[in-house]
Amino acid sequence: MPAAKTRVALIQMACAPSTEQNLDHACEMVREAARGGAQLICLPELFRAQYFCQREDHALFALAEPIPGPSTARLGATVREEKITLIASLFERRAPGLYHNTAAILDHASNGVDLIAGIYRKMHIPDDPLYYEKFYFTPGDLGFRSIATSQGPVGTLVCWDQWYPEAARLTSLAGAGILFYPTAIGWHPGEKAEFGEAQYSAWQTMQRAHAIANGVFVCAVNRLGHEHGDVVLKDAEGATQEIAGPGDHTPASGLEFWGGSFIADPFGRVIAQGSHGQEEILTAELDPALIEVTRQHWPFLRDRRVDAYSAITSRFIDTPFRQ
Amino acid sequence: MPAAKTRVALIQMACAPSTEQNLDHACEMVREAARGGAQLICLPELFRAQYFCQREDHALFALAEPIPGPSTARLGATVREEKITLIASLFERRAPGLYHNTAAILDHASNGVDLIAGIYRKMHIPDDPLYYEKFYFTPGDLGFRSIATSQGPVGTLVCWDQWYPEAARLTSLAGAGILFYPTAIGWHPGEKAEFGEAQYSAWQTMQRAHAIANGVFVCAVNRLGHEHGDVVLKDAEGATQEIAGPGDHTPASGLEFWGGSFIADPFGRVIAQGSHGQEEILTAELDPALIEVTRQHWPFLRDRRVDAYSAITSRFIDTPFRQ
Repeated sequence: MPAAKTRVALIQMACAPSTEQNLDHACEMVREAARGGAQLICLPELFRAQYFCQREDHALFALAEPIPGPSTARLGATVREEKITLIASLFERRAPGLYHNTAAILDHASNGVDLIAGIYRKMHIPDDPLYYEKFYFTPGDLGFRSIATSQGPVGTLVCWDQWYPEAARLTSLAGAGILFYPTAIGWHPGEKAEFGEAQYSAWQTMQRAHAIANGVFVCAVNRLGHEHGDVVLKDAEGATQEIAGPGDHTPASGLEFWGGSFIADPFGRVIAQGSHGQEEILTAELDPALIEVTRQHWPFLRDRRVDAYSAITSRFIDTPFRQ
Repeated sequence: MPAAKTRVALIQMACAPSTEQNLDHACEMVREAARGGAQLICLPELFRAQYFCQREDHALFALAEPIPGPSTARLGATVREEKITLIASLFERRAPGLYHNTAAILDHASNGVDLIAGIYRKMHIPDDPLYYEKFYFTPGDLGFRSIATSQGPVGTLVCWDQWYPEAARLTSLAGAGILFYPTAIGWHPGEKAEFGEAQYSAWQTMQRAHAIANGVFVCAVNRLGHEHGDVVLKDAEGATQEIAGPGDHTPASGLEFWGGSFIADPFGRVIAQGSHGQEEILTAELDPALIEVTRQHWPFLRDRRVDAYSAITSRFIDTPFRQ
């Protein structure tokens, strides 16, 4: 654990059709956060575009880029100038036909290209109506990681990962004291009235539980706004290309991203809470000493039954006596 | 999963010094629940005595009993008469010098002695000020189980287990659709004002998260009342023995068990909530169809990365590059 406290900022932002505009806007908000004192800053999942996974369209692979690549070059310059650590969720083109949903951790003290200290490739990939991620993203092959940064050991997981206690556990066991969850999650307009509150509550509850179970800080940062997945990008020749989202673009279609970013301390207390309705920079000062004190008072790691967990690698534990 | 709905009841009770009185009282409340329509009933952890683990005293091993034994004989008769399924948390004497914190599942349709359908021995054993359980209880050696009952496959975990996602996961993967957590958790009087709310919130949040992560019902049943751990029992010759609890027996000493039992559905919604202040029978009708519907809409089990979880059996994932 680092001895020093660190000031975290989560960039809860809305995403426009233009990928250039989103990158500009992200850099502006990052600078604003840094100038407000933030040292460790996280952007939402795939902030460079509207959430394009609302449909399966081969043309959208044009959004992918290498890491290092154009986004990390631009963001790295901001990281260097502001002397910060930044987590950026990007659509990674690893090889022709091989794409990942990847978080890059850039650190001003890193020796890596574009100041990249490490990357994490989203391990759990969803596939549900309007979240067709299995079409775009190959499941990650780097496992669960703790990345050394100037602000201490940091873990990054991405969106759907947040529903998996195994992911939070393994990242914490690898040494991370802060878990970041860049996210793009929202309500189906037709479901919001009946299920919206329960969905947000489940989402936050699950992640607060990761903080509690592991005695770590958890930072979840979500986009917000009603999107239909319209995309405007520059193609390989520099020409502007427009790829319209699916459906009729009424208030009843698309997804309403719910914002509601938050920061939880190692006992699951919410110490910063974002709204559902507006762009915000959420900040909190995180003291790594609180991790150790919490784990001393609630010594869950001490009593884990590591001799009895091996069946966690089973899909299901079938028995011939199952009812 | 059973096709039928089942009505669950949680017996939130206070425990007196007399072990005989507690058994009588438990049987009365179980009968009341059964006559109110409950089919699957759970008692709190170690309900036969005040929470004696507030100190380490060899005399208290006299509380332990075999399973099957006197408690299961008496409870089994109630189970037979009321045609129910009952989960009873007991201090098990397995062999001289070998004791467990064990949950027995009794089912009216079982062929077992005293109608015992299965047992679970608490796997995670705490040791904290006023919770000196490592002195009394050998860690369980049966692993995490799903027990077939007339009300469907049921999993039992006990108290400290509730902080471990691995325990809930493995019990769910074994097929249990309902997880029961008999519990004895309370506030230190000196801590309640500052930390009481956060402690209860963390306790409930963690268990709601087990429901969400696994798509199962979670039933947590706690005792309530301020206890100093006084015990009155009959010894081997039938003579009454009094073993006073430690300390000065003021309001500032002992433990205030917080009640607050609850039932959560497979999306983590609290569908029954107990008070902090009085004995109650909490009931809810649980529909196993909701498990399948919830798991179809939030298909977390589908996307688990069973290829990448093996390090869960590590105590910690040390690397030479750790900061």
